[in-house]
Amino acid sequence: MPTPPALERLLAAVRPGDDAAAALARGREDALTKPRGALGALEEVAVRLASVTGACPPPVPAAPAVAVFAADHGVHAQGVTPWPQEVTAQMVANFVAGGAAVNALARQLGVRVVVVDVGVAGPVDPAPGLWQRKIRAGTRNLAVEAAMTREEADAALAVGVEVAERLADEGADLLLTGDMGIANTTASAALVAAFTGADPHDVTGRGTGADDDTLARKVDVVRRGLALHGLTEGVAAADPVAALAAVGGLEHAALAGFVLAGAARRVPVVLDGVIAGAAALVAQALAPSAVDYCLAGHRSAEPGHAHALRALGLRPLVDLDLRLGEGTGAVLAVPLVQAAAAALRDMATFDAAGVVDKTQA
Amino acid sequence: MPTPPALERLLAAVRPGDDAAAALARGREDALTKPRGALGALEEVAVRLASVTGACPPPVPAAPAVAVFAADHGVHAQGVTPWPQEVTAQMVANFVAGGAAVNALARQLGVRVVVVDVGVAGPVDPAPGLWQRKIRAGTRNLAVEAAMTREEADAALAVGVEVAERLADEGADLLLTGDMGIANTTASAALVAAFTGADPHDVTGRGTGADDDTLARKVDVVRRGLALHGLTEGVAAADPVAALAAVGGLEHAALAGFVLAGAARRVPVVLDGVIAGAAALVAQALAPSAVDYCLAGHRSAEPGHAHALRALGLRPLVDLDLRLGEGTGAVLAVPLVQAAAAALRDMATFDAAGVVDKTQA
Repeated sequence: MPTPPALERLLAAVRPGDDAAAALARGREDALTKPRGALGALEEVAVRLASVTGACPPPVPAAPAVAVFAADHGVHAQGVTPWPQEVTAQMVANFVAGGAAVNALARQLGVRVVVVDVGVAGPVDPAPGLWQRKIRAGTRNLAVEAAMTREEADAALAVGVEVAERLADEGADLLLTGDMGIANTTASAALVAAFTGADPHDVTGRGTGADDDTLARKVDVVRRGLALHGLTEGVAAADPVAALAAVGGLEHAALAGFVLAGAARRVPVVLDGVIAGAAALVAQALAPSAVDYCLAGHRSAEPGHAHALRALGLRPLVDLDLRLGEGTGAVLAVPLVQAAAAALRDMATFDAAGVVDKTQA
Repeated sequence: MPTPPALERLLAAVRPGDDAAAALARGREDALTKPRGALGALEEVAVRLASVTGACPPPVPAAPAVAVFAADHGVHAQGVTPWPQEVTAQMVANFVAGGAAVNALARQLGVRVVVVDVGVAGPVDPAPGLWQRKIRAGTRNLAVEAAMTREEADAALAVGVEVAERLADEGADLLLTGDMGIANTTASAALVAAFTGADPHDVTGRGTGADDDTLARKVDVVRRGLALHGLTEGVAAADPVAALAAVGGLEHAALAGFVLAGAARRVPVVLDGVIAGAAALVAQALAPSAVDYCLAGHRSAEPGHAHALRALGLRPLVDLDLRLGEGTGAVLAVPLVQAAAAALRDMATFDAAGVVDKTQA
């Protein structure tokens, strides 16, 4: 199928990270008054920010923004979750009112929140801070037909691009992924299985409260969905948007576009949990360098997330058994990312501080 | 040996945490608009803050302060580290000038830094932000004699009490432990082995860069020190200050006092890495309830830290392969602690938000 010209241009704009800036940052880390590598994963974050921004030291991100993409899933009809579908729209109202976990964390940590209805099944009232970009009222049931048409997937992807570009235009210097959608861990598991080749049993988890029977049903639904659409790793790699349309969600498509647009704009993107991980696999398949611009906010308890992170080559910053989504894991990582950049920018070198450097020995 | 009256009074003032406030917090977590337990370890942090402060919701800590206790170690003479002892004083100057990692992270994250010379071997110039409380110019060599007299240990402990009380008097509502001292992981390993009964081989690590030979020497030094002073788990438990004096550091003593004073004042204490963990074991042996007031900031790469955390019953918040000390791991945990409290205070309940709660089913 033809790639829309706008997507074609976007993919061409995703260039590899800046290796020279990264090397400078690595060298600077080694000259700072600490044993080499003693700041552990924070050093890798700072080096990545240098690679993303092309600057050493990279600026400390000062205007982070999380976009919470909300959408429903036709696969809900298969009984893959104890939660009714109406909860998606109810939680969108909660986000807009500022009462959800992501709102509380974001307020505390200085993160802007925008909410995007890219495909909620029920009606959602207009409100400040809500971007109404509904492509359709939830996907179709991936277990019986393609979740989206290709045109719908392309349109949802373009929503994510629009959101990332507008946030960057408005000054955001750290883009965070968020998501809401009852049954979205089922679609995520299908995407992770398709793009990594993992068995559905290994990447399908309990989401927000599936019991043993529900989990078994969920694994079976993922397996049947992959078979129905003939999805293997090779097939997904050959036409990532087709795989996304077959088993993904409208928010997965939007998140993939959000990641790609961040990468094209050289703005670092902090991924939340398994939904973002699944979407990032789509982005990676479309433009492998997109991952150079990503940081993993946290490690979700959902088993598919570990598979996604491995395929993306990302190490999560926060590991606190969160299993909430919404962008909470990405928001919590923000101060760690800022601290990593501040350490690289602000610490004294051994020479400047007159401290003996035994690590040179 | 008699316990000084001031310490006796302090220990009596360490009461168990407030179970009623903790139960209220647990109930509130379960009523918030998220699946039960979906904020993972953050929920435990919020419940602990309620227990510490006796309030539900507990206030969001707004004035964190880290005290960096610096001291030298006579066991340095055994060749347990590649770093010369002068680095301790050099790093104290770096802290005071604001150029160290803990300074950069603390500035970024809104944490006050105070530096306390409780036993640096070399001279340290007076400076703003430096508290000069040197008990002696480093400990004696634990491998050949007691590191401190009991009086010295008591005096260093009292320094930690003074620092915590003054910071609390000046408004600190979250106390963070920091430390600096070349060879301090050797003394920490000895304390952890003594108080947990673990074998020196299992709790002694590379600190900031020991090679294989140095590590083997370090394990041997710890083993010989324990034997020389007849230290077993039972002996350490029977007279914790004697064990501290035999193999600990002046900063360990100060940190133990700092933890006890925080607990007595019902101010939460965030522990940094293995040095703080070793000191907290001393505090726990003196007043078991002291641990009710502690949070573990991070998991150090030093193997003794995992043993200490297990004995303390604490789960670390940050796990990023830091191996620096200075309080860096505690400082990085601050935004996570604040976020945990903010979520409990600010999130909407299912009832208030009109969201269907499937977790009640």
